[in-house]
Amino acid sequence: MDGRTQQVEAVLFDTFGTVVDWRTGVATAVDDFASRHGLDLDGTAFAMRWRELYQPAMEPVRTGERDFTPLDVLHAENLRIVLAEHGVDPAAFDEAELRWLNEAWHRLPAWPDSAPGLARLARSVTVGALSNGNLALLSRLAKHAGLPWDVIVASDVTHAYKPQRQAYERAASFLGLRTEQVMLAAAHNDDLRAARDAGLRTAFIPRPPSTGPRRRRTWHPMRTGTWSREIWSSWRRSSATGPGPRTGTSHRLRCELQFPPQLHAARRMPGCQDRYRPAVARGSSRGRWCAPPGSPPRTG
Amino acid sequence: MDGRTQQVEAVLFDTFGTVVDWRTGVATAVDDFASRHGLDLDGTAFAMRWRELYQPAMEPVRTGERDFTPLDVLHAENLRIVLAEHGVDPAAFDEAELRWLNEAWHRLPAWPDSAPGLARLARSVTVGALSNGNLALLSRLAKHAGLPWDVIVASDVTHAYKPQRQAYERAASFLGLRTEQVMLAAAHNDDLRAARDAGLRTAFIPRPPSTGPRRRRTWHPMRTGTWSREIWSSWRRSSATGPGPRTGTSHRLRCELQFPPQLHAARRMPGCQDRYRPAVARGSSRGRWCAPPGSPPRTG
Repeated sequence: MDGRTQQVEAVLFDTFGTVVDWRTGVATAVDDFASRHGLDLDGTAFAMRWRELYQPAMEPVRTGERDFTPLDVLHAENLRIVLAEHGVDPAAFDEAELRWLNEAWHRLPAWPDSAPGLARLARSVTVGALSNGNLALLSRLAKHAGLPWDVIVASDVTHAYKPQRQAYERAASFLGLRTEQVMLAAAHNDDLRAARDAGLRTAFIPRPPSTGPRRRRTWHPMRTGTWSREIWSSWRRSSATGPGPRTGTSHRLRCELQFPPQLHAARRMPGCQDRYRPAVARGSSRGRWCAPPGSPPRTG
Repeated sequence: MDGRTQQVEAVLFDTFGTVVDWRTGVATAVDDFASRHGLDLDGTAFAMRWRELYQPAMEPVRTGERDFTPLDVLHAENLRIVLAEHGVDPAAFDEAELRWLNEAWHRLPAWPDSAPGLARLARSVTVGALSNGNLALLSRLAKHAGLPWDVIVASDVTHAYKPQRQAYERAASFLGLRTEQVMLAAAHNDDLRAARDAGLRTAFIPRPPSTGPRRRRTWHPMRTGTWSREIWSSWRRSSATGPGPRTGTSHRLRCELQFPPQLHAARRMPGCQDRYRPAVARGSSRGRWCAPPGSPPRTG
């Protein structure tokens, strides 16, 4: 085995849900839009429905039925659908107003630990975005949310939508790296599973369920295997290989994963640490999500 | 005219020569390589020859004779040519050694004002690289030299090599902007001229002549017209339009261009300010280049 195999050179982060809180950001913009236009819209419900159309809109591109279309365009198409579903005629609004609303996805707030954690991590590895967003969206989002990316690998650069295998392979290729030198960090299992299948290292980042506050759990880090051990051994740059344990120490590993030595900034975030530690200490078979400060306490 | 026309949303910088000092960086790596292998090579002359093959290597890609080939590959091909020209057989070296030398282009030093100037500028606009380098090269270079890009628009993203018109047009398109909302900042007139022809705003950045310390002048900012006025009016976000004066105040404008209000960090760089000011004060018809500290004094 090449001595460099174990060395992670770049950690690429899924963005929507993992690094930024799309639900809050989009809901806020919808509420603002509704208030300015005297509409009766529930911002959170609207955001959830808009996001629900996200995967189906990418599917024809993935299958090749449709030429590659940037996410900003898919979002704009879906916005018109959701407005119509809510009895609102999109044609009644100025193009600039609709663009402003569509660009809510460019102005999402970061989770509180994202910017300091990424800055810390960037001291030792290349830190980038690997997202289904297009470059215009992701670069504005980074600027807005203060995300210190070393590099942005956008879907209109790779011309592939995750979890297509090509999205991960081309990302590594654009960075001049082998897939095993790249790690995907994400809050979503399907993304991590596909990244792992493409040969990337993986890191699970616990976040509130993206399907909404009413869902109790949407992630199952233990089912998808090895990334807890993988990221921990990568951070340590140890030579450890092979799948990590599926039970027993996995909580400890997952906790370390979330707070690797390089991520001291995140470690200091009370909202995460305080909620996460007790579950670990209790040896519970379930983790807890890393909630933003001010969120209601939850049990796993 | 749309009210946004005058607003520059993104300033994209040429990189080799404008932001980083390729000659010094490559010469240092060549000297190091020569010393380790007991070769008699003049690092600076080697670097100059290597760079001389840069434009010809991109030409077949520009004309379509050759499929798009990333700059790292063109550099590697040219490295073998230059080694052979110096009587050194590339086959005598380990692949990793040649890769290390080829990646000298990933480890170039920034001009002293680049990182602080860009960081300052990034407070008010999107700041990015628009370079013929590929994404792997540019992202590592940024990491190495501490360049705080908001976005990197690499040639393997646009699939075009400057000064091809598509390189500029696609850069604007990737950022979701109209060409007049994007400014190219560069030390090279051909790059600026092509950017202007493609509809971008332009800013001239004086740097030491890239063809080497023996050349007296290689840039002619006054011949290529309007960018001094353009950038100045952009920085001010004023509504001034039209070509700037070609004589008279152009030196003052060029000086302001180099030291716009947002670039206070650069203003404090003694190597630039001290050399540049006297020429302006004298009302000379020639500017002076912005030399790095320690460079010998020159007359324009």
